[in-house]
Amino acid sequence: MQILKTREALRTWRKSLPGPISVGFVPTMGALHAGHLKLITESRHHTEITVASIFVNPLQFGPKEDFTRYPRPFEEDCRLLEAAGTTVLFAPEKADFYQPDHTAYCDVAELDRYLCGASRPGHFRGVCTVVLKLLLLVAPTYAYFGQKDIQQALILKRMVRDLDVDTDLQVIETVREASGLALSSRNIYLSEGEKARAAKLWQGLTSAKAMFAAGERQSEKIKDAVRHAVNAAYPTRIDYIELVEPSRLSPTPEATANCVLALAVYFGKTRLIDNLIL
Amino acid sequence: MQILKTREALRTWRKSLPGPISVGFVPTMGALHAGHLKLITESRHHTEITVASIFVNPLQFGPKEDFTRYPRPFEEDCRLLEAAGTTVLFAPEKADFYQPDHTAYCDVAELDRYLCGASRPGHFRGVCTVVLKLLLLVAPTYAYFGQKDIQQALILKRMVRDLDVDTDLQVIETVREASGLALSSRNIYLSEGEKARAAKLWQGLTSAKAMFAAGERQSEKIKDAVRHAVNAAYPTRIDYIELVEPSRLSPTPEATANCVLALAVYFGKTRLIDNLIL
Repeated sequence: MQILKTREALRTWRKSLPGPISVGFVPTMGALHAGHLKLITESRHHTEITVASIFVNPLQFGPKEDFTRYPRPFEEDCRLLEAAGTTVLFAPEKADFYQPDHTAYCDVAELDRYLCGASRPGHFRGVCTVVLKLLLLVAPTYAYFGQKDIQQALILKRMVRDLDVDTDLQVIETVREASGLALSSRNIYLSEGEKARAAKLWQGLTSAKAMFAAGERQSEKIKDAVRHAVNAAYPTRIDYIELVEPSRLSPTPEATANCVLALAVYFGKTRLIDNLIL
Repeated sequence: MQILKTREALRTWRKSLPGPISVGFVPTMGALHAGHLKLITESRHHTEITVASIFVNPLQFGPKEDFTRYPRPFEEDCRLLEAAGTTVLFAPEKADFYQPDHTAYCDVAELDRYLCGASRPGHFRGVCTVVLKLLLLVAPTYAYFGQKDIQQALILKRMVRDLDVDTDLQVIETVREASGLALSSRNIYLSEGEKARAAKLWQGLTSAKAMFAAGERQSEKIKDAVRHAVNAAYPTRIDYIELVEPSRLSPTPEATANCVLALAVYFGKTRLIDNLIL
């Protein structure tokens, strides 16, 4: 696996490839787990060359969020990416990636109004800006994102469509522990006891989906079932439990197929998210 | 000259070109004049293939601006572009270019605070969004913009740098009538009498530059000289006469080399802009 540390090195390498080759891209913030590695595997199945990136993007963290303490096990991440068959890792320093007087941003209006967008102002603007830069540098045929961050995936799909970025974005199913807990780099902040309790988040979502399958259509009743399960997990705070329609990501009073049932809760300082599609 | 009407046709054509070919791009809103044609000539001197676009971009017009009455002499524009040696004209309809639920935007913070940005809220966001889309579709080696719209040119250069768009933006000197009046598609709104008076705008700018060359450094005195000349042209309203430093486009009390002296005035409903670099 080749490790490229600067935008210039990446651009030079990309231009050295023959035109019609298919390139898959997996952007990450490092602290890799089996969810990231599944994205690498997907890319390897469908493309000739797989590029991963590791960059803890300061633009997408709020001033009180965990940017500085975000885990950065770089050596271990490199071993995992290499073992998974990654061709090139792009791992720039912040000083190379953003100019000191960086002022250009990309954002997707409306779709960031609810869910994580409501409680993390500026987060998706930071995500859109970093991903757009990465897509323009890597110029991949396909880029792979996990369904766990579903609002991110849908916002980025909209960005790529609206701005004519020539990349096909693929959203890959969330990888979970045996307990049902969605894998996340932030799970390392949790104690074993918290992890066991956090598994109830997924149990709440699946029991709500069963209600929908059995005919329940009232959004409030479905969300109440999730809330009941989440309260039993006793997180320190519920950020949201919401049912949204998939094109605008806005709350809907009536559940229909393809609606997204999503939640965000805190265990201490650790914010966990999960979702499913009805 | 080949005329392509849809993004898909453009994308297909672009992908049919051999990889290393150099492409020049001149984005326009039509109503072409010798200023646009100079951009085409520049492109032809430095690249193998020249693409022009004509698209009156609704996103960059304010609700009270001249979007509907903006001139659209399409047949004549085609003749001019073909005679100038344009290879491909991209002329999409609005319905093809923007999805009905378009929500992704690009903007450049800070640089849009003064000059035209102050009096046209949202204008540069519209400009950045349309130009980013066009650059990603055309994928040109070089793109050409006129110095008359200097704030636009500097904002777009910043956008391209900050977002890693793989295009080199060139800013080409303003073309003027013998009187000094900067060519503009909006000059057709002017009577011959107004045009003669509007020529005094350039006389004001050049006399201020002469003051600077003679040693004057006080911004207020330099701007006063311009104001005096502009008042003699008796426009209906002065939007701004401003001296800004070139990296942040913010007003400076003291003139230095490379500062931009810029103005915007109304003759009736017609807004004219011009500038020079000290």
